[in-house]
Amino acid sequence: MPARSVIIDCDPGTDDALALLLAFGSPELDIRAITVAGGNVGLERTLQNALSLAALASSAAPVHGGADRPLLGTYGFAPEVHGDDGLGGIALPAGGVPNPALAADAIRDILRKAAEPVTLVGIGPVTNIALALITEPPLAAKIAEIVLMAGSWGEGNTTPSAEFNVWNDPEAFAVLLACDRPLVLAPLELTAHALVTDARIAALRARGGGACLRTACDILDSVPRSRRFGGLGFALHDPCTIAWLLRPELFTTRACPVLVDLVPGPNRGRTIIDRWDRSGLAPNAAVLETLDADGFFALLGDRLAALP
Amino acid sequence: MPARSVIIDCDPGTDDALALLLAFGSPELDIRAITVAGGNVGLERTLQNALSLAALASSAAPVHGGADRPLLGTYGFAPEVHGDDGLGGIALPAGGVPNPALAADAIRDILRKAAEPVTLVGIGPVTNIALALITEPPLAAKIAEIVLMAGSWGEGNTTPSAEFNVWNDPEAFAVLLACDRPLVLAPLELTAHALVTDARIAALRARGGGACLRTACDILDSVPRSRRFGGLGFALHDPCTIAWLLRPELFTTRACPVLVDLVPGPNRGRTIIDRWDRSGLAPNAAVLETLDADGFFALLGDRLAALP
Amino acid sequence: MPARSVIIDCDPGTDDALALLLAFGSPELDIRAITVAGGNVGLERTLQNALSLAALASSAAPVHGGADRPLLGTYGFAPEVHGDDGLGGIALPAGGVPNPALAADAIRDILRKAAEPVTLVGIGPVTNIALALITEPPLAAKIAEIVLMAGSWGEGNTTPSAEFNVWNDPEAFAVLLACDRPLVLAPLELTAHALVTDARIAALRARGGGACLRTACDILDSVPRSRRFGGLGFALHDPCTIAWLLRPELFTTRACPVLVDLVPGPNRGRTIIDRWDRSGLAPNAAVLETLDADGFFALLGDRLAALP
Amino acid sequence: MPARSVIIDCDPGTDDALALLLAFGSPELDIRAITVAGGNVGLERTLQNALSLAALASSAAPVHGGADRPLLGTYGFAPEVHGDDGLGGIALPAGGVPNPALAADAIRDILRKAAEPVTLVGIGPVTNIALALITEPPLAAKIAEIVLMAGSWGEGNTTPSAEFNVWNDPEAFAVLLACDRPLVLAPLELTAHALVTDARIAALRARGGGACLRTACDILDSVPRSRRFGGLGFALHDPCTIAWLLRPELFTTRACPVLVDLVPGPNRGRTIIDRWDRSGLAPNAAVLETLDADGFFALLGDRLAALP
Repeated sequence: MPARSVIIDCDPGTDDALALLLAFGSPELDIRAITVAGGNVGLERTLQNALSLAALASSAAPVHGGADRPLLGTYGFAPEVHGDDGLGGIALPAGGVPNPALAADAIRDILRKAAEPVTLVGIGPVTNIALALITEPPLAAKIAEIVLMAGSWGEGNTTPSAEFNVWNDPEAFAVLLACDRPLVLAPLELTAHALVTDARIAALRARGGGACLRTACDILDSVPRSRRFGGLGFALHDPCTIAWLLRPELFTTRACPVLVDLVPGPNRGRTIIDRWDRSGLAPNAAVLETLDADGFFALLGDRLAALP
Repeated sequence: MPARSVIIDCDPGTDDALALLLAFGSPELDIRAITVAGGNVGLERTLQNALSLAALASSAAPVHGGADRPLLGTYGFAPEVHGDDGLGGIALPAGGVPNPALAADAIRDILRKAAEPVTLVGIGPVTNIALALITEPPLAAKIAEIVLMAGSWGEGNTTPSAEFNVWNDPEAFAVLLACDRPLVLAPLELTAHALVTDARIAALRARGGGACLRTACDILDSVPRSRRFGGLGFALHDPCTIAWLLRPELFTTRACPVLVDLVPGPNRGRTIIDRWDRSGLAPNAAVLETLDADGFFALLGDRLAALP
Repeated sequence: MPARSVIIDCDPGTDDALALLLAFGSPELDIRAITVAGGNVGLERTLQNALSLAALASSAAPVHGGADRPLLGTYGFAPEVHGDDGLGGIALPAGGVPNPALAADAIRDILRKAAEPVTLVGIGPVTNIALALITEPPLAAKIAEIVLMAGSWGEGNTTPSAEFNVWNDPEAFAVLLACDRPLVLAPLELTAHALVTDARIAALRARGGGACLRTACDILDSVPRSRRFGGLGFALHDPCTIAWLLRPELFTTRACPVLVDLVPGPNRGRTIIDRWDRSGLAPNAAVLETLDADGFFALLGDRLAALP
Repeated sequence: MPARSVIIDCDPGTDDALALLLAFGSPELDIRAITVAGGNVGLERTLQNALSLAALASSAAPVHGGADRPLLGTYGFAPEVHGDDGLGGIALPAGGVPNPALAADAIRDILRKAAEPVTLVGIGPVTNIALALITEPPLAAKIAEIVLMAGSWGEGNTTPSAEFNVWNDPEAFAVLLACDRPLVLAPLELTAHALVTDARIAALRARGGGACLRTACDILDSVPRSRRFGGLGFALHDPCTIAWLLRPELFTTRACPVLVDLVPGPNRGRTIIDRWDRSGLAPNAAVLETLDADGFFALLGDRLAALP
């Protein structure tokens, strides 16, 4: 079975880093490009971080810088979670140079030339993907699936109503909701299952492995524990998307209508995930609802341990 | 200790019925008025239902008809939960006649004349209370506390975003949020603890008791079990407010900033309950977060069993 | 022909003062009540002003204090137009005492007892009228017509989008739009025809007359000239409503669908007046479009000159 | 004096056609590209129309197809004004083939390579320009000025609140408002001065001239006369932008804060043009307020007469 072609649009970011390392360690995936936007921290840092992570894992995937702002307005950053450098202050090797093509252009180019549909993974604000799709709508036909860490059906993690990625570019998320391709969402309630605890970090570190696994553990150690979980841990959001591609049997899903609130005000960026068929709308996304957490962390450990 | 003066603003409604019966059976409460609005079904039925419940329990509390529509627009009803008659088709004795004073006028009159502050309980759309407060703002000083079954911090039960009572009159709820009196909210996540199951109904029925308890059980039997709880039961929303007045030690609370979204669209009527201090706003409500469910049902049984 | 029963809901205010004096001088109108809200300045002053104006004109119409705030939020005032006292600092006789009934209650009481339908004139934020209608909706059947100084089809005079009266209580205006009684609007584009210039004040003053006319001219002198009219004058908004009742042949009208924007943001309070049938909605108001300005000022002069 | 480099982003469209012909006939302008979006009619037709107009005028300017939809949602068309073919059914020569580069890519390429800043003219929904600017924000530094036919300070011409171009892509307009380059707007109130009447068409036709002038007159004849002008004529919107570049002394301007309402509802797409400094915001656009109409039509006639 040939590897699955994927483009990963990210804003590393601590959990992006784990997602990228998980992808680098997974031969099932052919990473055609890593496209980077600002988000967790500014674009200058997220781009460096992506390059350093690729270098650390000896990945040859091209890395493209892209959006330093959303479709409208500006990004907000989250240094209180990811550190000022986006990776919790953990030292990484210097990375290479980015591919000169801008992220949205690279996405368009890959899709245009693709013989087989390509899977898009979005683990940041999806500005780059949205720009590609608005600029050249027929390319949607070349998308196999879009898998996003995005949204929540209940509380947000940035405002009381909005999850960070969607909040950072709600209009871009709206473009993806409307593009009529298979869409899979990992919302906050799903990623809460992927709870990183001290015990789980210890177990991961005990796998041995190389620099990638050690760096991953160092990054996990740097992330503040969340009040939502009583200080016991934090949710490992972004790697859930990669795990879905690798081991969908770890998840349960529900087909739901999903909307996003674009109106300025306290609900801006809120995803409306209609799990109970209250809106009468047709489902436009598969929402990941539950995760086998032990299976997830076992997968993560296996793949990180196989990296250099 | 003297009984606490309360006005109960309701739209019975199956769970309103249980709340009223719980209040009728509780000598700690001096029910100064039952004020009725449309909501679960139309005003004509909710008013009859309130009168019949008072008759069933031999309560002398005056019953006042009030709003047949919200501040803006019209109410939506929920006959799929409460039956076309609002009480699941359960036969009740004919009630008396309503007090001729309109609900909002009655609330104003009671507050104006009150020597001691009065507690307001809202278990429907709170149009009547809002009208009283807007028409005569100084009367807010006569309010001891406002206790509402209202809102949710996650999903709604009417739209994906909005809880039924708030959805039915979001502007009225906004008036109460802004009135600067102690405000206690029982949201959907709290009332989910008050899960009515077949076993709990059987236990309640086994208490014996009189017509009130039997009718209460019949009404509970009539309510459809909820998909949210896997068909195992349903949440007994409204009585949580009365239980809070009687036995606050059954609950935990959190002081939160609470807003309501008034904008037309899919988040209209959503309460934004900032449990994690993300908004930077000052708390304006005590949100009930957890409930000792066994204690709650024991209380309910005790009080219903003491009624005729 | 018997006099027409009217209730005038106002927030005096310089142009309210002229409207009240015009009404006091017009035997065609039987002023059943003057109901007062805050608006141009705070309620304490607007109520005093209404009482003083009634005293000046020896009017026996009862004056009722009412709303000191809109349905939601708080009023904004306009002392830069009306002076800190609401009447440009012009000395008036002390007024009598207000009728003890609150404005909304008085409106309800008059309508309830009315043998013939009553005309409502709104020249401030119409909070009092809205409260009466929401509290007791069947009373709408007793309304002959509602005539409002409200809105604009183009620019606002308070924000770039909103006219002052509607901006001060957009929800109240929405209630009146929806009440299904004949509705007549005098928007800013209409009242711009009623341009007060130095020449027109001089002509008015030259009529002689008594204290009322002199006071009216003093008030007009106090109002700042508007940049919109190149500093040549200002629009005499509120009296246009009374003039419509007295001499409709001075006006042309257009039946239009009218909406109001309630969403927080720069268009909050904007009236959407669909003069060109673009919305496909049914007309719900008669919008006054043009005014015979000379006829209007002649009418004003005649009636003011007849007052004491 | 060297010709001014311009890119014209359009959706022809009858008034776009006149604007393009005016530009083709003006040696002061070096038309670096004509970029086309859907709008007045669908992209397939607007692109053909642009190509045919260039062929008619023997222009060598490259024509690029671009957006067939706005940033969010879909375009609405206006065949009732422009005919099903967008040019009133007037026969034009077959055009050449479009340049293979997409409009947004062409704009970026021209700006990137430009030695001197380039002027952007937008006379349709400005989706193409917005996409270029969001994808590659540093290119804004290469923009000399952006001149748009857009918005209104009063009524709209599509909804009661919104002008057609902005209504068709309000988010794109918002991007341009925020790009911090000199921005000139020709709103509906300005273009109303450019009133095409039968007499003005007759005078234009009497100039003689070649196929371009005859075709221009035929197109003008095809446009329905507007109710807003009592059936006497219609506003020639888009050429006002080109006339501003050629003869700014024909116009008066006012520096204003300009916003756009993006909220779904009846004010979506409305421009808030704060001509009277009510918002306290800093001006971000020069709004064209008045036009010397005779000078405008003389300019139009001179330039059309000089074309083949």
